[in-house]
Amino acid sequence: MLGGAAVHFSLAASFFTEVHPVGPVGEDFGAEEFEVLEGRGIVTDGIERVAGGESFFWRGRYEYDLNVAHTEDTRLGVFAEFEPKLSDRSRAADTLFLANIQPDLQRQVRSQCESAGFSGLDSMNLWIETALDSLRAAISEVDCLVVNDAEIRQLTGESNLARAARAVMDMGPRAVVAKQGEYGAALFTEEGFFALPGFPLEDVRDPTGAGDSFAGGFFGYLDSHDGILDDTHLRRAMGYGTVLASFNVEEFGTERVTRLSREEIDERLETLRGMTQFEGVPTPAE
Amino acid sequence: MLGGAAVHFSLAASFFTEVHPVGPVGEDFGAEEFEVLEGRGIVTDGIERVAGGESFFWRGRYEYDLNVAHTEDTRLGVFAEFEPKLSDRSRAADTLFLANIQPDLQRQVRSQCESAGFSGLDSMNLWIETALDSLRAAISEVDCLVVNDAEIRQLTGESNLARAARAVMDMGPRAVVAKQGEYGAALFTEEGFFALPGFPLEDVRDPTGAGDSFAGGFFGYLDSHDGILDDTHLRRAMGYGTVLASFNVEEFGTERVTRLSREEIDERLETLRGMTQFEGVPTPAE
Repeated sequence: MLGGAAVHFSLAASFFTEVHPVGPVGEDFGAEEFEVLEGRGIVTDGIERVAGGESFFWRGRYEYDLNVAHTEDTRLGVFAEFEPKLSDRSRAADTLFLANIQPDLQRQVRSQCESAGFSGLDSMNLWIETALDSLRAAISEVDCLVVNDAEIRQLTGESNLARAARAVMDMGPRAVVAKQGEYGAALFTEEGFFALPGFPLEDVRDPTGAGDSFAGGFFGYLDSHDGILDDTHLRRAMGYGTVLASFNVEEFGTERVTRLSREEIDERLETLRGMTQFEGVPTPAE
Repeated sequence: MLGGAAVHFSLAASFFTEVHPVGPVGEDFGAEEFEVLEGRGIVTDGIERVAGGESFFWRGRYEYDLNVAHTEDTRLGVFAEFEPKLSDRSRAADTLFLANIQPDLQRQVRSQCESAGFSGLDSMNLWIETALDSLRAAISEVDCLVVNDAEIRQLTGESNLARAARAVMDMGPRAVVAKQGEYGAALFTEEGFFALPGFPLEDVRDPTGAGDSFAGGFFGYLDSHDGILDDTHLRRAMGYGTVLASFNVEEFGTERVTRLSREEIDERLETLRGMTQFEGVPTPAE
């Protein structure tokens, strides 16, 4: 199944901006896979095809409620030898997302994008356990951390999520996004707290890539906005992230997102907004 | 520690309406415990003190993130022999909440409250596993089910929460509230879906009673409203439930709620509302 963080991210972000994914693929990533990306206007010249190589591979299973994934097999493949060399256009990016991979690789990319006004990274328990110092350094160099809530706890050694998010902000980022599976996502900033539920669906076919689609909607929207990225925009970005994640899980792999339209996305954003609004303290007349 | 579903529920609901708890307590429930309730204006003549009896007792432990509780000891005590006989005033209640207990007992109370315009019940995995037919009958007789999301799945045998909630509505209730620990709570009705995050706190001392405090805020607010209970009111009730639960967990037992004010509650409701609002689709000028 076509997948991978960069693929899911790029497809989701492509509804908002021009996306330049950077990373290695193996020979198994062929014309058909490139066409899926190029069909959405994604600039693929940063995707390095390694002769004789094998693409990064993940296989896992989900628990009954689809909220917890268990990894059964991971093969780094071409990532094991990857040394990122960015094109001038990629180096000039305003917005940078470092998908989940070994944090020293993330730092190599980060250091090449000096003009990025807003940068973020994803990570996972594996790097917390095996490369904590590198990961902490990588986190200190970005504006926004986007990881699962359990990983924010694990990273900081703090069981309370609000305290854990503050500890991350003390490392450098000005925003922390806690991904929470079907429960949605929470945003912590200096201005305050914001949270959205996952978009409710009666048919969830495949949760794989939901987090990367979320990040694609989130960073894609932020890149499309020219002004200062205050909480108004970060919150709307949370909404777009939630919407893109919800479309992604409706079908297997990248099937649903490749035939999605911006109109459908905006319509679902308004539906989501309607699902989270309530009236405050009643007036005496009520 | 003073606790129990009816105690937490009654204290939370007392900020909105006159509460008439019904249930048995043992000799260990004395003047001091009655004073906590009466200090909040709660009518205690439905609390039956059983000579030589022991109050219902629960002891458990919480996992690292405080989201999952494991029961270590439950003693039914005076509930083992309880036969509810309601006073005329209790029978005339407009709003009825059946806290978590053996479902046949819940049905006995429900049948005595013929004039209740809005009724709800809580339950738990124990009754799903040992008294499913009774529980299904009890659910069919109320307007609203309020249980943990995992229990909605278990009750219906449906892993998808949206489908599971629909299956509950097919049994009779017009509203289903899925409690989700610190992730908050979700409301399913015919009109649609609504969800709120838990109120973020940096200090959670004791999650015991959070669900009952939620129900107290939820049903207490609904009882204080005279008109039709449409989704506008159900959503605001979700807000009040979330707020009361958050105060409850700030300190042990009933400590925080007994010195709470309606002003603090309303202030936190507005804060919660601010944490869940976002602007929709950007205008072309943005």
